[in-house]
Amino acid sequence: MQQEPLIPLQGWRRKLYIIIFEADTRAGRTFDILLLLAIVASVLCVMLESVAGIRNSYGTQLKVLDVLFALFFTVEYILRLVCVHKPIRYARSFFGIIDLLAVLPFYLGLFIPGSHFLADIRILRLLRLFRIFKLTHYIGEAQQLRRALMASRRKITIFLATVISLVIILGTLMYLIEGPEHGFTSIPQSIYWAIVTLTTVGFGDITPKTVAGQALASLAMIMGYGIIAVPTGIVTAELARNHNASPEVHSGTRLCPHCFTEGHDWDALYCKHCGGTLPRPAKDVAS
Amino acid sequence: MQQEPLIPLQGWRRKLYIIIFEADTRAGRTFDILLLLAIVASVLCVMLESVAGIRNSYGTQLKVLDVLFALFFTVEYILRLVCVHKPIRYARSFFGIIDLLAVLPFYLGLFIPGSHFLADIRILRLLRLFRIFKLTHYIGEAQQLRRALMASRRKITIFLATVISLVIILGTLMYLIEGPEHGFTSIPQSIYWAIVTLTTVGFGDITPKTVAGQALASLAMIMGYGIIAVPTGIVTAELARNHNASPEVHSGTRLCPHCFTEGHDWDALYCKHCGGTLPRPAKDVAS
Amino acid sequence: MQQEPLIPLQGWRRKLYIIIFEADTRAGRTFDILLLLAIVASVLCVMLESVAGIRNSYGTQLKVLDVLFALFFTVEYILRLVCVHKPIRYARSFFGIIDLLAVLPFYLGLFIPGSHFLADIRILRLLRLFRIFKLTHYIGEAQQLRRALMASRRKITIFLATVISLVIILGTLMYLIEGPEHGFTSIPQSIYWAIVTLTTVGFGDITPKTVAGQALASLAMIMGYGIIAVPTGIVTAELARNHNASPEVHSGTRLCPHCFTEGHDWDALYCKHCGGTLPRPAKDVAS
Amino acid sequence: MQQEPLIPLQGWRRKLYIIIFEADTRAGRTFDILLLLAIVASVLCVMLESVAGIRNSYGTQLKVLDVLFALFFTVEYILRLVCVHKPIRYARSFFGIIDLLAVLPFYLGLFIPGSHFLADIRILRLLRLFRIFKLTHYIGEAQQLRRALMASRRKITIFLATVISLVIILGTLMYLIEGPEHGFTSIPQSIYWAIVTLTTVGFGDITPKTVAGQALASLAMIMGYGIIAVPTGIVTAELARNHNASPEVHSGTRLCPHCFTEGHDWDALYCKHCGGTLPRPAKDVAS
Repeated sequence: MQQEPLIPLQGWRRKLYIIIFEADTRAGRTFDILLLLAIVASVLCVMLESVAGIRNSYGTQLKVLDVLFALFFTVEYILRLVCVHKPIRYARSFFGIIDLLAVLPFYLGLFIPGSHFLADIRILRLLRLFRIFKLTHYIGEAQQLRRALMASRRKITIFLATVISLVIILGTLMYLIEGPEHGFTSIPQSIYWAIVTLTTVGFGDITPKTVAGQALASLAMIMGYGIIAVPTGIVTAELARNHNASPEVHSGTRLCPHCFTEGHDWDALYCKHCGGTLPRPAKDVAS
Repeated sequence: MQQEPLIPLQGWRRKLYIIIFEADTRAGRTFDILLLLAIVASVLCVMLESVAGIRNSYGTQLKVLDVLFALFFTVEYILRLVCVHKPIRYARSFFGIIDLLAVLPFYLGLFIPGSHFLADIRILRLLRLFRIFKLTHYIGEAQQLRRALMASRRKITIFLATVISLVIILGTLMYLIEGPEHGFTSIPQSIYWAIVTLTTVGFGDITPKTVAGQALASLAMIMGYGIIAVPTGIVTAELARNHNASPEVHSGTRLCPHCFTEGHDWDALYCKHCGGTLPRPAKDVAS
Repeated sequence: MQQEPLIPLQGWRRKLYIIIFEADTRAGRTFDILLLLAIVASVLCVMLESVAGIRNSYGTQLKVLDVLFALFFTVEYILRLVCVHKPIRYARSFFGIIDLLAVLPFYLGLFIPGSHFLADIRILRLLRLFRIFKLTHYIGEAQQLRRALMASRRKITIFLATVISLVIILGTLMYLIEGPEHGFTSIPQSIYWAIVTLTTVGFGDITPKTVAGQALASLAMIMGYGIIAVPTGIVTAELARNHNASPEVHSGTRLCPHCFTEGHDWDALYCKHCGGTLPRPAKDVAS
Repeated sequence: MQQEPLIPLQGWRRKLYIIIFEADTRAGRTFDILLLLAIVASVLCVMLESVAGIRNSYGTQLKVLDVLFALFFTVEYILRLVCVHKPIRYARSFFGIIDLLAVLPFYLGLFIPGSHFLADIRILRLLRLFRIFKLTHYIGEAQQLRRALMASRRKITIFLATVISLVIILGTLMYLIEGPEHGFTSIPQSIYWAIVTLTTVGFGDITPKTVAGQALASLAMIMGYGIIAVPTGIVTAELARNHNASPEVHSGTRLCPHCFTEGHDWDALYCKHCGGTLPRPAKDVAS
């Protein structure tokens, strides 16, 4: 069952691995902080480029920065592939895919104009932030939240199925009552209105004009009152239950070299996810 | 007290019954999946027909599909009536009515133009989805949700009565303060506004313009803050209580042949709802 | 400490009292149901009168109905005053004031045009509904809700004080950033906008146009996310706590003749509120 | 560890200190109430000044009142500095900064027009209200709320980080789908729209027009349903937990003379925050 470790056993690849993938050594932390700054800067860069006024004045400079960031992230991605023992396994892990997605839009943008804006997806890489700053408590609490959401997975599915049925029927009725002359141009459009209304967003781009339409909308909104209570109730009940059960989690920043799982206890010897042996804490390894 | 079983004792009607009403045999599952696909396809068909652009290009084709789906569901409804032992009892059960409602709008549409769009109501038949895919856990959790809502039934009624009183008084005051010249053309219209505001939907099609109106609206919105907390609190408290009490439900997909109740335990011999004897698990019967 | 009973000891006033104030006899129930119908009809009447189209066609008829309803409720109010032992005490009780408020707007309307629409406030009299239909469980649950709200009274006050401070500061900042040219014409107006935004109502009649304004608004909305969680949390925690503590309440529809408190247990001999002796259940008295 | 007390040992400064900083003596209460009235009046004054109509009619009078209030608060601030033993420590405490912020905008307004409106920030000084009226229960409950928010600090941070990532990606997608011609003029603007939508505020100043845009918006809104449940769940679970644990707090209105902490028990001898000795209850001192 145990997979071969991803961390190379020795040589420069092992050193590179510890710098790039771990955050326990000085070099590893420095690298991670630089990476974070690059991510934030490149996302800001993409955002500013989308503002017409700024694009007109600083378009060239922003383009250059764009290329530089893309090169940097490409090199980093290649280095990550190089320094792990089993590149394919890294490339198919969750963070491996995110890392690739952070690079792809730039090259896509060379063929399809505009798609390079999707480089924004790099922001997802920031989720590593919690690891770098040794915010181990955060990892524990994030797991609590995730567990609560997972546990209420089925109730939420049932709830969504009910909401979708409701929204389709409500949309059809409104389409028949109000009709195209009041903005309800088609059933899909009316379903969009029903979602806007039931979720209490209420844009107001389409609104009922007839008495019957306003009466039905009123009914839907008061019903929506009760409906909005359900997901909240589900998540809250789950979190409240978790509270009593969850012991304080003291997890380190070590990464399982077999399956890239994080959040192992300080004294853990084996990965809790794949059962592979964990390296000794990186600090010792690096010294 | 015990009702006569709905499942015929023998012959082709028994075989048909097991295919159409049960989901434990291969034929039953195949039939249910085909039915689901037909439901989704016919609902999509109705939706697309309501889009002016598509209706103009593919109107005839969609009409033909409409007729075919209507025939299919009509035949299916008649088969259901034929193969049960007591057709009236099926016709008056919850799913019997839904099945009829899925067919009626088409025939209604022959007389009242436009009403065939109501065929959308077929989407409700999708609620059987959870049964077909043996999502028995889902049935258990849906029952938990339903039980929590039933238990808080009275509190929600009191809450709604209070909200309705509040909304009528608020609407009247706004009508007097703002008047028809600011969009509050009548008390029912103002009540509609009050509902839009208190539920935090906030379309913005009607908004207070005078200082007094904006002050009263501000008061109502801040009050609405507290009000929205009440249904959430009710449902959550109920769900949290349920949590401790509810044992894991392991229910099968067998249907009580007496009253069409679902969700019986695998080892149940009698229907928990009407006390009628349950058939042996359909798999054995079919083999 | 004990107050003199409000129910007259004998004669026609005692009989009238039992009909008007109690709901346990056949005559009492009939009277209450008639009263409810009159309330609903008169409120509908007021609403319809406010609709311009209907007022133009049926104005005279509605006016006549208005006068008739006003006379009916006036006579009823006088009868209530006459048949209680201490009219002043009734007139100053909660429902005594509501009953007066249901009559006043009509007479006020004779002097101040338009104010007769306030007769809508009669809807509050419907809160007696729960008593008439022996919905004693409802009374128990309404008390649970009231208790939960009372227990979280202080937390809600603190919460509102914080929200008001926040809204004033936010409104001032937006007034300075956006200014009158973008619809933020004054600080009170901007505070109104801040309330509309923080409560997630979002009418959209006033919206930030500048980049700084949109950034501040974004911040406020994300903050509002957390803020809306607080009142819900308060009420839910209180309701969840109540759940474990509250025994099932079995209260009758008897009215304390001393202080008009309702909801006494079937076997109660003394009013739980003022300590006065309760009458034997009205049914026996009336027989 | 213990700091030198801030309350002077004797003389007029001690008397002044007890009047200005404490609320247990008659003079102290009178001073605090006057201060509160001045705060409310000055904030109202600032608000009214921002209304164009009122400014044109009563501009001069309001300006004069503004100057008077500014002088009053300046003198008060200086007196506070004078009568404490260690002025620097007061000036750097939480309320010391608020007191300064209440004065600064006026002087700033002499140089930067408009900035004197920021004097509104004085409203924050009202938070002392709970102390003056001996609302010690309120202080206890405020601490409960604060504790619940502090305990869920990390979960809320994780939640906000997720929401921000989501909002950036959603904004980018909408910018690409809808584009500048439908109001999504830039990515920051689209992110603003995404925040408006996900928080269910829904101004409606920018709305999707294309089918793809409306579909993505529908998805985002239904997701927002689940998302809004999370902070509520976090705070509620924390409050429900607190409930069982928190004993009733009986705190006085005494102020620690070392670190300005409030909310000490009546029989406390030492500050629970800095460990400094507390003065005997001010009443005795003043008599």
